[in-house]
Amino acid sequence: MSAQESDRLIQERAIERAGTSFNVQDLIHYLDDGEENTKIYESMSLQLERDPIFKIKSSHLDLKAKRELAFKKIVKLAGYFQNSDEVELRNRIRILSLIDPDVATRIGVHYGLFIGTLRALGSSKQFEFWIKKGAFSLSNFYGCFAMTELAHGSNVAALQTTATYDPQDETFIIHTPSLSATKWWIGGAAHSATHAVVYARLISQGKDYGVKNFIVQLRNSQHELLPGVSVGDIGKKMGRDGIDNGWIQFTNVKIPKFNMLDKYAKVDNDGKVTLPQFQQLGYTALVVGRVSMVVDSYNTGKKFLTIALRYASTRRQFGKDSEGKEKKIIDYTHHRRRLFPLLASVYAMNSAALVISKFQDEANKLVESGENLKHVIPNLKDLFGLSAGLKAFCTWETAHIIDETRQSCGGHGYSDYNAFARGYNDWVVQCTWEGDNNVLSMSCGRALIQNYLSVEKKKIVGKYTKYLETTDISNEFELKSQDLEYIEKIIKAWEFVSKSLIVKSTNKFKNFVKEFNGDVELAFEKISSYRFIIAKVHTKLILLKSFYERILEAPKNLKPVLSLLLQLYSLSITSENISQFYSFNIVKGSDFLENLNYKIDEINELLRPDIIGLTDAFNLSDFVIDSQIGKRNGDIYESYFKHVNDNNSDLKPHYYDSIMKPFFQRDMKPSDNEEVDEEEEE
Amino acid sequence: MSAQESDRLIQERAIERAGTSFNVQDLIHYLDDGEENTKIYESMSLQLERDPIFKIKSSHLDLKAKRELAFKKIVKLAGYFQNSDEVELRNRIRILSLIDPDVATRIGVHYGLFIGTLRALGSSKQFEFWIKKGAFSLSNFYGCFAMTELAHGSNVAALQTTATYDPQDETFIIHTPSLSATKWWIGGAAHSATHAVVYARLISQGKDYGVKNFIVQLRNSQHELLPGVSVGDIGKKMGRDGIDNGWIQFTNVKIPKFNMLDKYAKVDNDGKVTLPQFQQLGYTALVVGRVSMVVDSYNTGKKFLTIALRYASTRRQFGKDSEGKEKKIIDYTHHRRRLFPLLASVYAMNSAALVISKFQDEANKLVESGENLKHVIPNLKDLFGLSAGLKAFCTWETAHIIDETRQSCGGHGYSDYNAFARGYNDWVVQCTWEGDNNVLSMSCGRALIQNYLSVEKKKIVGKYTKYLETTDISNEFELKSQDLEYIEKIIKAWEFVSKSLIVKSTNKFKNFVKEFNGDVELAFEKISSYRFIIAKVHTKLILLKSFYERILEAPKNLKPVLSLLLQLYSLSITSENISQFYSFNIVKGSDFLENLNYKIDEINELLRPDIIGLTDAFNLSDFVIDSQIGKRNGDIYESYFKHVNDNNSDLKPHYYDSIMKPFFQRDMKPSDNEEVDEEEEE
Repeated sequence: MSAQESDRLIQERAIERAGTSFNVQDLIHYLDDGEENTKIYESMSLQLERDPIFKIKSSHLDLKAKRELAFKKIVKLAGYFQNSDEVELRNRIRILSLIDPDVATRIGVHYGLFIGTLRALGSSKQFEFWIKKGAFSLSNFYGCFAMTELAHGSNVAALQTTATYDPQDETFIIHTPSLSATKWWIGGAAHSATHAVVYARLISQGKDYGVKNFIVQLRNSQHELLPGVSVGDIGKKMGRDGIDNGWIQFTNVKIPKFNMLDKYAKVDNDGKVTLPQFQQLGYTALVVGRVSMVVDSYNTGKKFLTIALRYASTRRQFGKDSEGKEKKIIDYTHHRRRLFPLLASVYAMNSAALVISKFQDEANKLVESGENLKHVIPNLKDLFGLSAGLKAFCTWETAHIIDETRQSCGGHGYSDYNAFARGYNDWVVQCTWEGDNNVLSMSCGRALIQNYLSVEKKKIVGKYTKYLETTDISNEFELKSQDLEYIEKIIKAWEFVSKSLIVKSTNKFKNFVKEFNGDVELAFEKISSYRFIIAKVHTKLILLKSFYERILEAPKNLKPVLSLLLQLYSLSITSENISQFYSFNIVKGSDFLENLNYKIDEINELLRPDIIGLTDAFNLSDFVIDSQIGKRNGDIYESYFKHVNDNNSDLKPHYYDSIMKPFFQRDMKPSDNEEVDEEEEE
Repeated sequence: MSAQESDRLIQERAIERAGTSFNVQDLIHYLDDGEENTKIYESMSLQLERDPIFKIKSSHLDLKAKRELAFKKIVKLAGYFQNSDEVELRNRIRILSLIDPDVATRIGVHYGLFIGTLRALGSSKQFEFWIKKGAFSLSNFYGCFAMTELAHGSNVAALQTTATYDPQDETFIIHTPSLSATKWWIGGAAHSATHAVVYARLISQGKDYGVKNFIVQLRNSQHELLPGVSVGDIGKKMGRDGIDNGWIQFTNVKIPKFNMLDKYAKVDNDGKVTLPQFQQLGYTALVVGRVSMVVDSYNTGKKFLTIALRYASTRRQFGKDSEGKEKKIIDYTHHRRRLFPLLASVYAMNSAALVISKFQDEANKLVESGENLKHVIPNLKDLFGLSAGLKAFCTWETAHIIDETRQSCGGHGYSDYNAFARGYNDWVVQCTWEGDNNVLSMSCGRALIQNYLSVEKKKIVGKYTKYLETTDISNEFELKSQDLEYIEKIIKAWEFVSKSLIVKSTNKFKNFVKEFNGDVELAFEKISSYRFIIAKVHTKLILLKSFYERILEAPKNLKPVLSLLLQLYSLSITSENISQFYSFNIVKGSDFLENLNYKIDEINELLRPDIIGLTDAFNLSDFVIDSQIGKRNGDIYESYFKHVNDNNSDLKPHYYDSIMKPFFQRDMKPSDNEEVDEEEEE
């Protein structure tokens, strides 16, 4: 019986797969930005897949056991990581993020944040010193990144921990002045870390120079805490429980002067402080994190769409198809409407991730090269603003994708064995850490207004805000139903609406500045709604444009399907933001909205035969996907049933004899606190 | 140092609280629909709060330990439940849902679903029979509700399990025909249940009469499975892990004829089947679940808003307030914009929950009274449609509330000790179970079109769709910026837009029916987007109207603040759905949107002094809230720090000696697989 059901499901999936209109290998290489990358990703992924320790999953474990398992995996990973260069490290962490996000973060805290900060903000002498100490090989060394405090996260500039310079013995005294200044959430601090990069206020000669970075040793070679260092365990979280997040308090801990990272800011022996010309260079390290979260948004989004779309092409419910069987849920208009635009969105994020990665690499090279910084600054500003917007709206989009795909799988989405539950809980912290998404959106909105003020003053702006210069909004612009075929027209409409909103916001801003006698902060505060909406519209526009531009270079056999996805993306983001288009009279009437909706349904119909191919092109193995209903071969129920039983094999509850039996067979006489019918008493 | 910080925070909270403009007790009673109810809820909550077993939290436990703890709690609860009437049962489960949602469901499966089905679909003789067997006292009895199958959830009518009548010995044979017909997700099946209500196709005299309900014993008095019954454990889920969800397969299990619940459908000894005139009466039981989920949406929403708003009124970040301290985050325009409309939404759900509960009670009484069903049917239809819409959009709203409030607390929202993590994971299944929200929305949309077709035919419609009769959409209707002060005008605009959309959808529907030669199903399928949007707009309109109507009866001192909340609710849902208003020319231009936004900011400013009072009125104790940053007295950091340390007190990782030390001190010589510099070899 079961065997026949399986045969049928496997055959159905094979037929779906055979319907693909393009060469899947070509699309894999296109998404990976080259066949070379595909080979690298496949190899890294296979190394993990074949390693027994990575087959062990942590869901059934308690908190302590999760921490232990994560460290066992790190022991295994260290062998790879200690021999990797920067690019390889980055790739390994990205692949690992798809399989064990908590392990990826726990090891990433050291190789990404600790080593990364050392590289970015330390002198080459300092870098070499700590590497020699064992930082790269993890020999009696594990770094953590002590930035956030209990009462300060987003506002890094207001952190309270102090590093007071003492010229007498050329040391800094690191001190936590209050409970609320306790370092909090520090990944690696609770169990693993021997050293920390500490963000603390540099105080010298009685003056506060703002937040700088200091290396502080936490534990000795017996892994005991050093004098003055208190550490605790932050405990259970929503997800990523393999990471040993901790808190740290420093009580007047002395460190050598050498331990302040001084590539930019420097202190001489007497305590005289020299600050760099462009303070913002110290923050370029933060952009690295944002960019990698855009990449992760793409990677994680693709995983969950693969599961949900495979499930939708197998699951049948209600209705009748042409053979009289219940209809596949993928063949419902509404189900397609829920999932296909998200697939298009993942493809758009793929392009945006490549664009912002390259933009960052270029910017870094320019900064390193010592080029005249005045010319680099406009693009750096663009990079700050754009990376803030993309980090916020891409990590949110992926949170939405995981939630919507889970719901689209009904009850099975709620099972731990289908990947969504862990996936969501592990993911959503990305919307908060390294810049809360709302704070980043507001700062992106602020940057856009500043950009437009630059345009007004005929100053140079970066390449991604160039359209604020070139788009003409002095005349009306209308997008009609028949224009929905033309992507260039839709992009123009987006540029028009984005610029219109930014101009309107800038004007409001200027009025408020006047009204509040030059109080710029108050004026920015009053236009908060606008800052948010312009950040969103601008970021979606850049996503759309990067997707459009990248398709121009795609292999010929891929262009038709990619163009459909692009069109779907453009229409679905237009539909989501249509109120702005209405408000500027770019679109009119209820028929437009109706036509837009039908156009989306129409494209979904055209994409339907390629859906399995489009998810196969994400090139994720069953091991990486780790979802019973997301199996490649389509035999979902058999696999799910077996997995559930392999992982839950007790036949009788272990507490039957101790709790259940005495309860079920208890004395049912009423207690002395209950009233009793007289009859019964007789 | 810490003590001073605590003093300051506690004082700040007291000042916030003192700013309340209304009598909090009055508002508590208003929300509870009477002082009597308040007393009942407070007492039930206190009984749990004082009981040591309910102080034990499950987050740090593994799956097995969670199941065991949940049953220990049930043992304690049974003492209350076995002496409760229906109303008391319902209230106890609702209070428990706020504290231990998994325990509430695990006991609710028996007292709600099993007993409820017995009551709704069994004859009084059957009901008494099973009560005598111990069903109410749980003496050697625990019921479960075996509806869903591995491959059938939403489409109950297509369930595959069979109950074949055998007139020879007057029995039914219960059988699972295939793997995909395995009963799946059955709460209580894995560990606790001795009996199940099984949904199975009644087959008699070779004919299939559709799905009916049968009581099947699963386990004997030694808790061993009976012959023909196979059960397994479904294992780990996203949340609610205290529930022992299981799967069940029946292999030709014989049960007596008496075990078919036959209040409506009946089988005589020869196997002749009699079905009731109104088949839908069998489904009224489903409405009970939906209504209680609307109540839960309100209850759960209020918990998370209390936490987030308290936190926002204490947490400071960036900026400077009038005293030169960093600004409270509640005083940022954007932060208010994120949270205050959700607070208004919770207040709206309070009214809607009361309305739909009363509507259901009335309908039930009418059905029970044997009133002429033809007169009851229009309101019953209304109840089906409205309960579907409210269940979907309220459970979604609360999922959104938990997510947004969590994000609004930054990193601290991600800690397990602040309630959001468990809260979200436990909650979101409400969007899926007992009618997937998308499926329910589509069915609500379908009902609305059928309602409008009835209006066209001058048939009677229920009271909540009456406006489809009375609203005139033949002339233009404009909502101007200055109208935003007038709630009646806004409600009229909503009725106008809702009817316009429903009329447009109905016309499209009729055209498609013609185009597809009378294929109604295909026509409904083609207008899926419309069905979804009309369900949403209609449901929000009913929420708005029920909030408006209930305020008319509010005590005088509450009216100003409630009216502000109502206005905020009306404007924020208008803002969220503004594209529909634009599309029908009800609103025009970008200035309208700007004014709408500023009006919302303005109301938020007016509500600001009452925020703590408005959350205090939810009357939730620190025990119920169970969130360190949500503490009533405002001393959040001290409490959080202490809680974290009390729950995580190991100073050195327990795997240091076994794993960490050998790794940190390992031999760092390259392996024989690595190339070695010749120099080093020398």
